Amino acid sequence: MSKKKKLNLGLVGYGFMGRTHSNAFGKVNQFFDLEYEPVLKAVCARDADKVQAFANQWGYESVETDWRKLVGRKDIDLIDIASPNNTHEEIAVAAARAGKMVLCEKPLGMNGAEALRMVKAVEKAGVPNMVWYNYRRVPAVVLAKHLIDEGRLGRIFHYRAKFLQDWTISKDLPQGGAGLWRLDVNVAGSGVTGDLLAHCIDTAMWLNGGIDKVTAMTETFIKQRPHALTGKVEKVGIDDASAFLARFSNGSLATFEATRYARGHKALYTLEINGEQASISWDLHDLHRLQFFDHKDEGRLRGWRSVHITDSDHPYMKNWWVPGLQIGYEHTFIHQVADFLAGLTDGKVPGPSFRDGLATDHVTDAVLKSAASGKWEKVSRK
Amino acid sequence: MSKKKKLNLGLVGYGFMGRTHSNAFGKVNQFFDLEYEPVLKAVCARDADKVQAFANQWGYESVETDWRKLVGRKDIDLIDIASPNNTHEEIAVAAARAGKMVLCEKPLGMNGAEALRMVKAVEKAGVPNMVWYNYRRVPAVVLAKHLIDEGRLGRIFHYRAKFLQDWTISKDLPQGGAGLWRLDVNVAGSGVTGDLLAHCIDTAMWLNGGIDKVTAMTETFIKQRPHALTGKVEKVGIDDASAFLARFSNGSLATFEATRYARGHKALYTLEINGEQASISWDLHDLHRLQFFDHKDEGRLRGWRSVHITDSDHPYMKNWWVPGLQIGYEHTFIHQVADFLAGLTDGKVPGPSFRDGLATDHVTDAVLKSAASGKWEKVSRK
Amino acid sequence: MSKKKKLNLGLVGYGFMGRTHSNAFGKVNQFFDLEYEPVLKAVCARDADKVQAFANQWGYESVETDWRKLVGRKDIDLIDIASPNNTHEEIAVAAARAGKMVLCEKPLGMNGAEALRMVKAVEKAGVPNMVWYNYRRVPAVVLAKHLIDEGRLGRIFHYRAKFLQDWTISKDLPQGGAGLWRLDVNVAGSGVTGDLLAHCIDTAMWLNGGIDKVTAMTETFIKQRPHALTGKVEKVGIDDASAFLARFSNGSLATFEATRYARGHKALYTLEINGEQASISWDLHDLHRLQFFDHKDEGRLRGWRSVHITDSDHPYMKNWWVPGLQIGYEHTFIHQVADFLAGLTDGKVPGPSFRDGLATDHVTDAVLKSAASGKWEKVSRK
Amino acid sequence: MSKKKKLNLGLVGYGFMGRTHSNAFGKVNQFFDLEYEPVLKAVCARDADKVQAFANQWGYESVETDWRKLVGRKDIDLIDIASPNNTHEEIAVAAARAGKMVLCEKPLGMNGAEALRMVKAVEKAGVPNMVWYNYRRVPAVVLAKHLIDEGRLGRIFHYRAKFLQDWTISKDLPQGGAGLWRLDVNVAGSGVTGDLLAHCIDTAMWLNGGIDKVTAMTETFIKQRPHALTGKVEKVGIDDASAFLARFSNGSLATFEATRYARGHKALYTLEINGEQASISWDLHDLHRLQFFDHKDEGRLRGWRSVHITDSDHPYMKNWWVPGLQIGYEHTFIHQVADFLAGLTDGKVPGPSFRDGLATDHVTDAVLKSAASGKWEKVSRK
Repeated sequence: MSKKKKLNLGLVGYGFMGRTHSNAFGKVNQFFDLEYEPVLKAVCARDADKVQAFANQWGYESVETDWRKLVGRKDIDLIDIASPNNTHEEIAVAAARAGKMVLCEKPLGMNGAEALRMVKAVEKAGVPNMVWYNYRRVPAVVLAKHLIDEGRLGRIFHYRAKFLQDWTISKDLPQGGAGLWRLDVNVAGSGVTGDLLAHCIDTAMWLNGGIDKVTAMTETFIKQRPHALTGKVEKVGIDDASAFLARFSNGSLATFEATRYARGHKALYTLEINGEQASISWDLHDLHRLQFFDHKDEGRLRGWRSVHITDSDHPYMKNWWVPGLQIGYEHTFIHQVADFLAGLTDGKVPGPSFRDGLATDHVTDAVLKSAASGKWEKVSRK
Repeated sequence: MSKKKKLNLGLVGYGFMGRTHSNAFGKVNQFFDLEYEPVLKAVCARDADKVQAFANQWGYESVETDWRKLVGRKDIDLIDIASPNNTHEEIAVAAARAGKMVLCEKPLGMNGAEALRMVKAVEKAGVPNMVWYNYRRVPAVVLAKHLIDEGRLGRIFHYRAKFLQDWTISKDLPQGGAGLWRLDVNVAGSGVTGDLLAHCIDTAMWLNGGIDKVTAMTETFIKQRPHALTGKVEKVGIDDASAFLARFSNGSLATFEATRYARGHKALYTLEINGEQASISWDLHDLHRLQFFDHKDEGRLRGWRSVHITDSDHPYMKNWWVPGLQIGYEHTFIHQVADFLAGLTDGKVPGPSFRDGLATDHVTDAVLKSAASGKWEKVSRK
Repeated sequence: MSKKKKLNLGLVGYGFMGRTHSNAFGKVNQFFDLEYEPVLKAVCARDADKVQAFANQWGYESVETDWRKLVGRKDIDLIDIASPNNTHEEIAVAAARAGKMVLCEKPLGMNGAEALRMVKAVEKAGVPNMVWYNYRRVPAVVLAKHLIDEGRLGRIFHYRAKFLQDWTISKDLPQGGAGLWRLDVNVAGSGVTGDLLAHCIDTAMWLNGGIDKVTAMTETFIKQRPHALTGKVEKVGIDDASAFLARFSNGSLATFEATRYARGHKALYTLEINGEQASISWDLHDLHRLQFFDHKDEGRLRGWRSVHITDSDHPYMKNWWVPGLQIGYEHTFIHQVADFLAGLTDGKVPGPSFRDGLATDHVTDAVLKSAASGKWEKVSRK
Repeated sequence: MSKKKKLNLGLVGYGFMGRTHSNAFGKVNQFFDLEYEPVLKAVCARDADKVQAFANQWGYESVETDWRKLVGRKDIDLIDIASPNNTHEEIAVAAARAGKMVLCEKPLGMNGAEALRMVKAVEKAGVPNMVWYNYRRVPAVVLAKHLIDEGRLGRIFHYRAKFLQDWTISKDLPQGGAGLWRLDVNVAGSGVTGDLLAHCIDTAMWLNGGIDKVTAMTETFIKQRPHALTGKVEKVGIDDASAFLARFSNGSLATFEATRYARGHKALYTLEINGEQASISWDLHDLHRLQFFDHKDEGRLRGWRSVHITDSDHPYMKNWWVPGLQIGYEHTFIHQVADFLAGLTDGKVPGPSFRDGLATDHVTDAVLKSAASGKWEKVSRK
């Protein structure tokens, strides 16, 4: 009989992210030694049959079909928002007002204005909050963070990030509908800027500090698509590709790019950071490796080291298997839950907080504004 | 409320493999749509406190400290053996006689003689049985199997496998004791031959058919080590490294090698197969990729393709995430459980069966015999 | 006794590029079957002793210390300019007026204005001319060009190029002086924009057509350096890093970046092009490989092919060794000479012509202008 | 006017190796500062027209059609043997007796007996001699040698080498005839054992010392082929594939394999050496890189470094271009000539000497003997 403290969870949404979160809540106590234990109390979605099937599969105790009811339940400690972007603000604000802890999928809001209201709500309520920028919990990326924080890279000159996909190239793909809400601007808010660049930006500011200003371009390669809900061919409102140049507060220069039209790349999130003393690079297609170049190595033997991040002295890895045996994508969510639960014990929930999520929305706002204006735009710090 | 058929599980052993199996049984129904559902009924190990802690962590309903009791329980349908090699035969034979299904960690027996008795026991009892050669369930390796079975490689000329580790190089490492029973010949039976080469051989025969004969060499680099149980420095009985040349029944040539003294490699299991029309290679350090070379490609554009095995048309992958997002080591065990459970429904449990496990033990026996005799040795087919 | 037509060569400059050119002229007839044979008639540089030593080493028949004398010699057919950027215009214009063929190192001029005068001079004189953008002659890059011209990529969505170095990070490096004129803005014209980005731009326009407009940023990380000639610490006038976003005439988007502050990269020129049907990438650190992704490949076997460009059906490679044996950097210059000489026979000297060099200078001008203005700038097509 | 000492060269054979040698002799003085300068005095082959064409192309002053005449010429200092294996002994012995320096292509003899007579001839004559095992002069391999000699690897546990090709898989390829003498056992002596394994063995003994004993297998996959000279289909006498296990004198274990039936590999010579403290690997398809793993690196940052061997502190590289710009296959021959010429000045010609070539022939003899006997065979040290 487990003597852990129970944390009653109410999940909103059962799509791709609903699955990754459920898996994380269900597995975390088998791999991490924590005071708290999540209880899968309820899952909420509009389709009663489907949400019940999901509950059965994942072991949720009950279901709801109206998120307001879920937020109103006394037996729920934490609302986890895994529904589309255009629902985040309303649910999060209500949950905060109800005194619930709130976890929210990224991007936090449809834009900075929404995100700011969400921040104010959780800060006013004083409830623990976090945004699911899961790539902060890739062990290789955490090791990169440690190396930077230790000063191993020295002065930073360059930051470079890309997120390349190719899944929307076909003209026949509808916008909106099941699994495709990311193509519907009214639901998603933007295209790759909020979906993919947001990940790149969150990691970048975590590793390299704030971004001062940007100049950007966006493009919609396929201008019209059938809309799954209306059945009509409509103008596409999202950006298919988005790229920007940036200047960080620390004086380093950056290039960022995201697209769903890079044939041959499925989810190639790459980042590289060049410092005076050392450089680091990483990519999501081989997420269990960190590339590290150290100028302090003996001259004739300098080279990029491919570090296989599976040792017990690598972040999180002592909780998993043995050296050489890799973990994958889903583990980043488990790590985030582990850190969140440990943070409850410590009284210090780690980031990315809603405030961090706001900062990223400010950058994506500036990117979209610059793409429209053709000018460099400053990033809001409100 | 789940309406699935319950399959009551009794696990023996709670070490590294006890964890991988428990994780697999616990997760399989969240990712695979199956008629059966494993119930974690009991876990058995000698240390009552530790086994109870393990049961709490993984959700086992009860514990036992004597495997005979576990085997005797009426509420157990399946015995899963994850204890050291020298316990396999006795437990498996008793479980079969008790009419239980039996899953057993690899290698099946300490040698072919033990394995043969285990095969006879399960076949006499007519109980479903399987050996945990988990690398057959890496999606990339399964895709390799499909390509071979489709005849895409044509006549096979070469098979090449290695399993390279470096974790026992230190002289200070004891033989035997917690986590180190693989270094104690009385518990493990052999060194890397039974531990690592056995994996290579199982996959090889699955992909490329039977092995006729071998010539081998083995070496024990560190001749004496303290024994954790006796406290004395004793002669090391296991092989630290083992390599052999082989001829397959299909006429192809092979080289195999395993060692725990390959500095820089943690668990580098690699395999390559060269056919007249195409070649395939794979390695465990990047298990989510398959390398494929097709001679039928246009001449000037022929090259090794690095296929990122994360698409929905890749084996098992439609059950996981989306393209580009990789799974890891632990998933191979989940796949094996999924296939086993599906096999119960179909009435056709897939391999590796105990008989397959015996075939591998026959090869490792021949390897050790050849290393001693200095001659080519035929592989028994009994 | 060779019966080839002699082409009498006069080289200006004996630095790094003087060596690559001399090697190319000396070797070309041993590997390519050509009507013409270059004769190393004279080399010119200001230091009489050093230029004589160079002549001895490479087999030049004579030396000059004033390029005007060289240009005035009747026994010279072709002037090859391998001296610093600020000398290109004057020499090239004089050579053209003297009716000599002219080869010129890149960038063609210090800026578009200079380059335009050079173009006018050679076009008025009607003399064969070429710019040493040698990366057009890497076999892998030529194969990329063929694939694009065959329409294998379909509609182009993205072009991406970087040229990353790390050799000027030290603050102690002087600007100007032997081997360091590239750091002196008065000699080089610009920093990485003209040195490295110019290469990226030339290849890009060759592969993907014209660039319409750009938005750019540049940075000088180390603001002051000792000047080798004056001995004083002076303001650094060159750009250490330069990046820009661009739109090509064919509707594709591009990102370009060059820097000498990317720790860990020596001369990492990379390019990637994503089309609707296929993608290509290449990098200079492994110049003998082309990465190719073909969406037409069977779905489950799609992957990036690493094509080892050493077969006889690869561009230029039948002239070299046997499959698997790679060539290197210097060979690109030999290929350029081979193509130039073959062009003389055919009466059609291939690019990059001076006019092509001008087009690149127009882009680098726009980049520098945009970096100063903070706006998108159109690229001149004059 | 060059004041270097002239070394008059007489080359026998104008095939693939005749070209690599001629290129090396012609270029060496442009890149290395040496007291001696080779003079391309004469080239010899049976076909008068073809040899004259070759002489014209490469700048040989004269031709011979009978090697005995060449060996008898007073104006020749050095005989370079680049003709097929079955001609090596006779020419080398005659050249030594005539007091000429002798360079000979590998393998030295058709077998150890021939090689021994060649060794005795050059040693009796006291003439400088060398075998063209060119891979000893790959900069990355030389760096590996330096690291081993410095003790950076510590005790050696494993050596692993392969040479994989795929060019003879077609049944239609004739044995013998132009460019195909390597398939004719009477000309080549053996198949891949003498052609490819010989390279692996030479490097291995240079890096890791002597080999004591071997157990081997060979195979001829295609049993009959048309003979280009007789026009008849004849039994194939060469081995298509050859693999062996070995024990080095230093206690390390080794696996070696060569084949021309490894689909997808053109000339993939790979080697790896695992020591207690560090490991090294290298392959010919990316010959400008050395992989290095150092256990002394900080634990969490240990990884294989990919060292791009193009810096001025890398072996031979200060003589070439600038960091990041790679050289290729042909340069290994230039390095060998440079070392040979420098050795003449120093009075100490470096290896591989004929005696080194004999040692390799002893190993290949043992391999072929073991493949026939099915037993471990000792390697002769005579």
